[in-house]
Amino acid sequence: MLDRKDTGPHVVIVGGGFAGLYAARRLARGNVRVTVLDRRNHHLFQPLLYQVATAGLAPGEIAAPIRHVLKAHPRTRVLLADVSGIDLGRRTVRYDGGEIGYDYLLLATGARHSYFAHPEWEPLAPGLKTLEDATEIRRRILLAYETAERTEDPAERQALLDFVVVGAGPTGVELAGAIEEIARKTLRRDFRSIDPATSRVLLVEAGDRVLPAFPPDLSRRAEAALRRMGVEVMLRTSVEDVTPEGVWLQDRFLPARTVLWAAGVSASSLGARLSAERDAAGRVRVLQDLTLPGHPEVYLAGDMALFVEPEGRPLPGIAPVAIQEGEWAAENILRSAQGRSRLAFRYRDRGVLATIGRSQAVARIGRIHLHGFIAWAAWLFIHILYLIGFGNRVAILWRWTLAYFTFERADRLITGGSRMPGGEQSNRNPAPRL
Amino acid sequence: MLDRKDTGPHVVIVGGGFAGLYAARRLARGNVRVTVLDRRNHHLFQPLLYQVATAGLAPGEIAAPIRHVLKAHPRTRVLLADVSGIDLGRRTVRYDGGEIGYDYLLLATGARHSYFAHPEWEPLAPGLKTLEDATEIRRRILLAYETAERTEDPAERQALLDFVVVGAGPTGVELAGAIEEIARKTLRRDFRSIDPATSRVLLVEAGDRVLPAFPPDLSRRAEAALRRMGVEVMLRTSVEDVTPEGVWLQDRFLPARTVLWAAGVSASSLGARLSAERDAAGRVRVLQDLTLPGHPEVYLAGDMALFVEPEGRPLPGIAPVAIQEGEWAAENILRSAQGRSRLAFRYRDRGVLATIGRSQAVARIGRIHLHGFIAWAAWLFIHILYLIGFGNRVAILWRWTLAYFTFERADRLITGGSRMPGGEQSNRNPAPRL
Repeated sequence: MLDRKDTGPHVVIVGGGFAGLYAARRLARGNVRVTVLDRRNHHLFQPLLYQVATAGLAPGEIAAPIRHVLKAHPRTRVLLADVSGIDLGRRTVRYDGGEIGYDYLLLATGARHSYFAHPEWEPLAPGLKTLEDATEIRRRILLAYETAERTEDPAERQALLDFVVVGAGPTGVELAGAIEEIARKTLRRDFRSIDPATSRVLLVEAGDRVLPAFPPDLSRRAEAALRRMGVEVMLRTSVEDVTPEGVWLQDRFLPARTVLWAAGVSASSLGARLSAERDAAGRVRVLQDLTLPGHPEVYLAGDMALFVEPEGRPLPGIAPVAIQEGEWAAENILRSAQGRSRLAFRYRDRGVLATIGRSQAVARIGRIHLHGFIAWAAWLFIHILYLIGFGNRVAILWRWTLAYFTFERADRLITGGSRMPGGEQSNRNPAPRL
Repeated sequence: MLDRKDTGPHVVIVGGGFAGLYAARRLARGNVRVTVLDRRNHHLFQPLLYQVATAGLAPGEIAAPIRHVLKAHPRTRVLLADVSGIDLGRRTVRYDGGEIGYDYLLLATGARHSYFAHPEWEPLAPGLKTLEDATEIRRRILLAYETAERTEDPAERQALLDFVVVGAGPTGVELAGAIEEIARKTLRRDFRSIDPATSRVLLVEAGDRVLPAFPPDLSRRAEAALRRMGVEVMLRTSVEDVTPEGVWLQDRFLPARTVLWAAGVSASSLGARLSAERDAAGRVRVLQDLTLPGHPEVYLAGDMALFVEPEGRPLPGIAPVAIQEGEWAAENILRSAQGRSRLAFRYRDRGVLATIGRSQAVARIGRIHLHGFIAWAAWLFIHILYLIGFGNRVAILWRWTLAYFTFERADRLITGGSRMPGGEQSNRNPAPRL
């Protein structure tokens, strides 16, 4: 239904995450028509998703309708569509409502958490990738306290108050720190039978340090900060099994009704349909110009793409990589459309950040290593900065300022059912799946 | 688990809505122990629920954890519990986790929408009573526009853009006005294939005027305001059937994929287990002191109670009635505990308010009838005032100020699945039920 006077090549972007959205914005400046397909109506600011899971922010504060973010660009169309396949020969994308042709294609459908060949663990230990994941985790955390308040049996009560977080990457560290803070501060006066401070948070990591993608000195800082807060950090420990009652490690059983999964991701299944080279996490290997080998009109960016730098280092699945890849792919598409040559992508590594808790974070910014309050301030500043275009930075700043002084968490809602998983009278919705 | 040094009679409150919460606050001042049971963890500010359903406010902005609202009262305990029965003889309440004894009981479990012996209409035409209802309605409204944007067939597209609201009480009027505003203003520039302004909102009412509980002159004002906004008001029109394709009236079929139900309520089913006199809506008739006939230790308040004034007028199911009944019941409980006589309840009728849209409302305040901007300002002031204790009045005021000048709606999220009801690839959660 685009205007007939509309000309220029047609670019189809699949996925409205960081890579897709920044690509769409860049493309809107060139002489191309753009269609963005996503099965969600909203772009999600994933770096703050753990805040929704721990009741600090509301879902709407870190998500914005994709079509709203792109409304200023009349030649950009957004369709809510579930893409089921790509026909590289006919240059068409198949979705639940039909087919759409493209001149250039950008695939950026991201990643999902991975259970390492144990998909049966997913309902027992939810991961954190979507808003539904986040409200489900929030529901489980809050419900565990509510159920503990009703429970007389001391062992059962402790199992309800113990939280296991599997995986000590940034998401695992952020979740563990936030849950610890809920227990020690937010809920302190809210219960009568239980003392939330008797709650324990166990952070289980198979590797030998937390935040393995960070420099070792920052990993040590982060671990020390977690321990000071009260988190039990268990390194070199792998999970053998997850049951409704808790987690089996190599040598023992941790009884815990709430188990959260932050241990690994696998790329979107769309990559598997391209019959291209993929790594163990399912990411599709792209050339230096971000195109699919043999298909200079097909680009991949973000968590589903595997870009290996000339020096041999594969880029990690983080937001800055996705943003820069998306913009670079858009640039190369515009160059191709003008008959110019594509350029090899160079990642500008500005650093990495992870927050641990109130006034606690670690950061590598360029070559500078920061920790403690200054790193936390940097984290806050950068996240607020990147929320540009969400239109709710003021509201979030207000909430965080309040929360900083009151320890309050504004979004403590149990929605979608009020029974613990496995409860006999369960009326909750099934955990959403992709 | 209450402290052993804790003395005084034990009051059990079932339901943390307006009646239950205001009763608990009043009781906290007396020498009684209080236990509040609710199957939700949150108190809901129902008068603003339509704002969540129409993406203007976030769920967390109109809901607060019951235990948090009552945290300052150490002798008040809150339990997340689904009450299944009352044993009036043994003075115990049965819930999903056991039994709890009471000296005084206050039942205030509210009402649910009623489909007049057509429960099969519920999945087709959701009503608005819970946060899950609100996000489901929001999902359907936003999804209808998304699906219309993808649809080529003009008849199907119009059916997606047409919204039927059944029932022209305050909820129906507020929903119709807000949906109309979304179509004309909020979404104006967001779509490429459809023009949201071609969307139609049909408000179907069986009676002969909108807002039947208001004075007739205000009903006329409200109807005129709705028509000016573009809402099609259909009076003396009853719904014969609801199908996935639309609504059957007596003489014709309205094709509309989105049908919302605001036509009637029936009292909580808990009242049916008391073997007491009930009206057609299932409300339990209470004595003048708000007790259950024959049980001076059992009180009912709010939407599940039928209080008939000495002059013969039954009180309506609105928030001010629930609040005053809850407080009065608490007062009578405290008087009984002190050996004093119970007092007959008198409702102080301060008026009624309904908002229609931006700067449009009708209000009866005492004997004064207001409409237009002044009524809307009164509505705004009173609602902000009653959000005391929610701790987010500043955030809401900020959002509303922004929304007033920008027409933006901050919470346009489709969560819980992205398919229209009945779609073949549905991955949405089932509609939550109570």
